[in-house]
Amino acid sequence: MSVLVVGSVAFDAIETPAGRVERTLGGAATYFSLAASLFAPVRLVGVVGEDFTDAHAAVFAGRPIDTTGLERRPGRTFFWAGRYSEDFSQRTTLVTELNVFADFRPRLPDGYRACPLVFLGNIHPGLQHEVLEQVERPRLVALDTMNYWIEQTPAELARTLARADVLVVNDEEARQLAGRRGVLEAARWILERGPQAVVIKRGEHGAMLVTPRELAVVPAYPVERVVDPTGAGDSFAGGFLGALAGRRRLDGHALRRALLYGAVLGSFAVEAFGVERLRQLTREEVDGRARRLAALSRFPLP
Amino acid sequence: MSVLVVGSVAFDAIETPAGRVERTLGGAATYFSLAASLFAPVRLVGVVGEDFTDAHAAVFAGRPIDTTGLERRPGRTFFWAGRYSEDFSQRTTLVTELNVFADFRPRLPDGYRACPLVFLGNIHPGLQHEVLEQVERPRLVALDTMNYWIEQTPAELARTLARADVLVVNDEEARQLAGRRGVLEAARWILERGPQAVVIKRGEHGAMLVTPRELAVVPAYPVERVVDPTGAGDSFAGGFLGALAGRRRLDGHALRRALLYGAVLGSFAVEAFGVERLRQLTREEVDGRARRLAALSRFPLP
Repeated sequence: MSVLVVGSVAFDAIETPAGRVERTLGGAATYFSLAASLFAPVRLVGVVGEDFTDAHAAVFAGRPIDTTGLERRPGRTFFWAGRYSEDFSQRTTLVTELNVFADFRPRLPDGYRACPLVFLGNIHPGLQHEVLEQVERPRLVALDTMNYWIEQTPAELARTLARADVLVVNDEEARQLAGRRGVLEAARWILERGPQAVVIKRGEHGAMLVTPRELAVVPAYPVERVVDPTGAGDSFAGGFLGALAGRRRLDGHALRRALLYGAVLGSFAVEAFGVERLRQLTREEVDGRARRLAALSRFPLP
Repeated sequence: MSVLVVGSVAFDAIETPAGRVERTLGGAATYFSLAASLFAPVRLVGVVGEDFTDAHAAVFAGRPIDTTGLERRPGRTFFWAGRYSEDFSQRTTLVTELNVFADFRPRLPDGYRACPLVFLGNIHPGLQHEVLEQVERPRLVALDTMNYWIEQTPAELARTLARADVLVVNDEEARQLAGRRGVLEAARWILERGPQAVVIKRGEHGAMLVTPRELAVVPAYPVERVVDPTGAGDSFAGGFLGALAGRRRLDGHALRRALLYGAVLGSFAVEAFGVERLRQLTREEVDGRARRLAALSRFPLP
């Protein structure tokens, strides 16, 4: 059961208290693909420029990641530069050059249309909608978005939200989207507008799953040393969707298991700059940490 | 098995996004006592002024809280005023009037000396040490402290820390005390200086337990509506110590169970201003929420 992801592929310059990198392969779809591909075949839709070489493409090789849908266009690849504060809690964007990503129009290769699991990365909700027009009856559609689209394109976002099964956002985005102060209230507001489940990512504090019948909270796995939080949320989403692949039923049990794996992939992502940790990651390591994380948050029932 | 607590009893003026109260009974020892008394008899040591009336003392009545050790002295009770930011993440102290608390010297009534569980609230580490000189072979000593003592009285704090079994602090305090950026590193540093366990409170993000053999992370219970975070950490400590009372062995299992109850008591404390919610709380409600919280963070083992 394969996973389709549509989103950014980018070069990132990153400064954190642990060091810096000048130009590393990043972008939501990159992190997502590497994370999800530990569970299932991934089909990637995105756009890169002429500066994206075979060496960069090699990041996806050795994993079941189909890059037929990764369009190469004249111009330069999306570039982002950012800096994290001393305690990693704040991120400042220094440079955003959209480049070829500015005119991105997702086009699905024929072989992609029957993907049962779809992840619509954080792009214009109108483009997310165009993707949905190109897929054939997916079993599950998960959606990411951000403050910019919530503010600038509310009507288009509402239309895409209505067709999504799972919204995956951080707590600020959930609150902003719903106009509610409490995260639970915000999640319930969202559940009335399309999705059957809301996943709220809270960075170093874990994540929460809210459905009409289910509430689950997973702590973040306490990593020894955070190096670079970039892409943790996208890796989370990749682990989440990946863990749903091959599940007979996408029920509460499957969603809880997916939440656990999402947290695990997010925790690996932060251990090195860019996608370095995800590249060398094995499914055995992932399962081992999933077991440890489940054990960490297991308490005797009173 | 009774619990001894030494700490502040105060009047608080509190402003939060949910409203304000002008003068409500607070202080670490007050929150702690009300929380712990749901599990075990509590013996309170503190000081109040002439403005502390029988009506105020009634807060402790109806619960097994011995206030023989609550000294009443000429002058006014410790007064604190503070304001929380719109998202509750920042707290600004507006007024601190120590009043009778400035000259507080904890004196234990004879009946208190054999208490098996001791909680040394956030006071001068020299005074915490004086309390330890007055107790007879407690089974477990838990310690709270804050940035002020970490900076101003490091040697005295080190001496008290060496005699503590459990340190209960928030993540910033743990990092500051250890001079380490990572919370796990900080906890290990602390474990080499006396305590056999470190409990790190993270407010709305739950709490963590670190021992040489045990690591546990409990999420915060997602409350519907936060009204007033004041005293949540002290209520957590009360729930934690209370839950240890009556346990035959203070082992990993007992500590994990205590962590769960700590999180539960903290979550109730924030649902109303001051100690209002704790006052009306029943053990049945506490156990119900503990079961729900344990279920929230229970994941299928991969």
